[in-house]
Amino acid sequence: MNLILVRPEDYIKQHTVRLSDRRLAHIRDIHRAQLNQSLKVGEINGDIGTGMIVDISHTHVTLSLTLSMPPPPPLPITLLLALPRPKMLKRILQTVSAMGVKEIYLLNSYKVDKSYWSTPVLSPASIEEHLLLGLEQAGDTVIPNVHLRKRFKPFLEDELDAISLDSQKLVAHPYSAQSQARVSRAKTTLAIGPEGGFIDYEIDKFQSLGFNSLSLGQRILKVETAIPVALSKLFSF
Amino acid sequence: MNLILVRPEDYIKQHTVRLSDRRLAHIRDIHRAQLNQSLKVGEINGDIGTGMIVDISHTHVTLSLTLSMPPPPPLPITLLLALPRPKMLKRILQTVSAMGVKEIYLLNSYKVDKSYWSTPVLSPASIEEHLLLGLEQAGDTVIPNVHLRKRFKPFLEDELDAISLDSQKLVAHPYSAQSQARVSRAKTTLAIGPEGGFIDYEIDKFQSLGFNSLSLGQRILKVETAIPVALSKLFSF
Repeated sequence: MNLILVRPEDYIKQHTVRLSDRRLAHIRDIHRAQLNQSLKVGEINGDIGTGMIVDISHTHVTLSLTLSMPPPPPLPITLLLALPRPKMLKRILQTVSAMGVKEIYLLNSYKVDKSYWSTPVLSPASIEEHLLLGLEQAGDTVIPNVHLRKRFKPFLEDELDAISLDSQKLVAHPYSAQSQARVSRAKTTLAIGPEGGFIDYEIDKFQSLGFNSLSLGQRILKVETAIPVALSKLFSF
Repeated sequence: MNLILVRPEDYIKQHTVRLSDRRLAHIRDIHRAQLNQSLKVGEINGDIGTGMIVDISHTHVTLSLTLSMPPPPPLPITLLLALPRPKMLKRILQTVSAMGVKEIYLLNSYKVDKSYWSTPVLSPASIEEHLLLGLEQAGDTVIPNVHLRKRFKPFLEDELDAISLDSQKLVAHPYSAQSQARVSRAKTTLAIGPEGGFIDYEIDKFQSLGFNSLSLGQRILKVETAIPVALSKLFSF
């Protein structure tokens, strides 16, 4: 937790919040914070700054806030991700949130195990929990939007054109041979396949919508490695 | 397992191996392989090619090998990594092995918890297991060398000069502000700090040995994300 995130309901008066959950535990046990100490604080979907401890006890901590800096800029990308297995999904939600992705579509694909769609990790509360962990890690405040799309074909046929409008369209998957990616800071829509890769039918569908291949090299990378590699190829970190 | 790795002791005659461990289970249960089917095979520290199934049963599989392609090229990098916590270490060993890093020094650092050095993950068998998982994932055969260095100062003072000779020397850590990295495909020595970052004393030590800062941007990334991001900044994938 490199940034303590506060929400509207934490305010007890203007510029002052009172916290009593895992954030209190973190401030007490990890920061070992004292009265009058300043911590890095951000407001969900708002600015970043400092919170000075004006009161601290076993049950709560009260912070006086000065928030005036904007959060780090987002990546201009929409990420389409074949739904990973639940354990990996948790880490991936944290990673993409930390890296600044703000629009994420979790997609079905032929090689996505059907059982993955019934994992509790996909509950709104669990998704938000992992996104917040990523924001707290990276020092960002803006919660990404995660969209679930359990049907591949209707999503590509009915929605993807509008979603990817005016963007560079790329599809990365482990068995893609060529790379025609124009690397840029331009608005991008990037699709990343499941562990076994998208099947030919799915690749054809993406290509028919104007998606080009993004090669990640000769080595076959796990999805959780492929994501930071692909984002680093496309944007400067 | 995108590549089945075989060892000298697997050979029953020239160009023929017999397997009976988790590789048999994988070939039977995941590949659902049949007689005369060809699988992608590599020899540890050797070439890559195909293995045709000439015999398969509940207890073993016999493959006739044709290995003629070299493994993918390694990254010309020596990675110095503050020892991560055990759970993350497992994944990191797999990731760096998959990405083609061949020289890895696991270092002590002020913010490395002492208990991390007694984890069973650091046993030679466990390290090799995770390195092999990375090679099997990526389709590589060359086992990386992992060196443990429990004392920071003697390592930097007595060994690092020779290790990093003729290489571009970089240190990445979460609180580095500036970036003077020359990005290239040149021989590189890259140091990555622990979750809390290297302390000033450690950074000063690296700088006195000619290490420059590599910035990974405004966001503070987890070590397991910082590694693929840094490698992607330095080398083309």
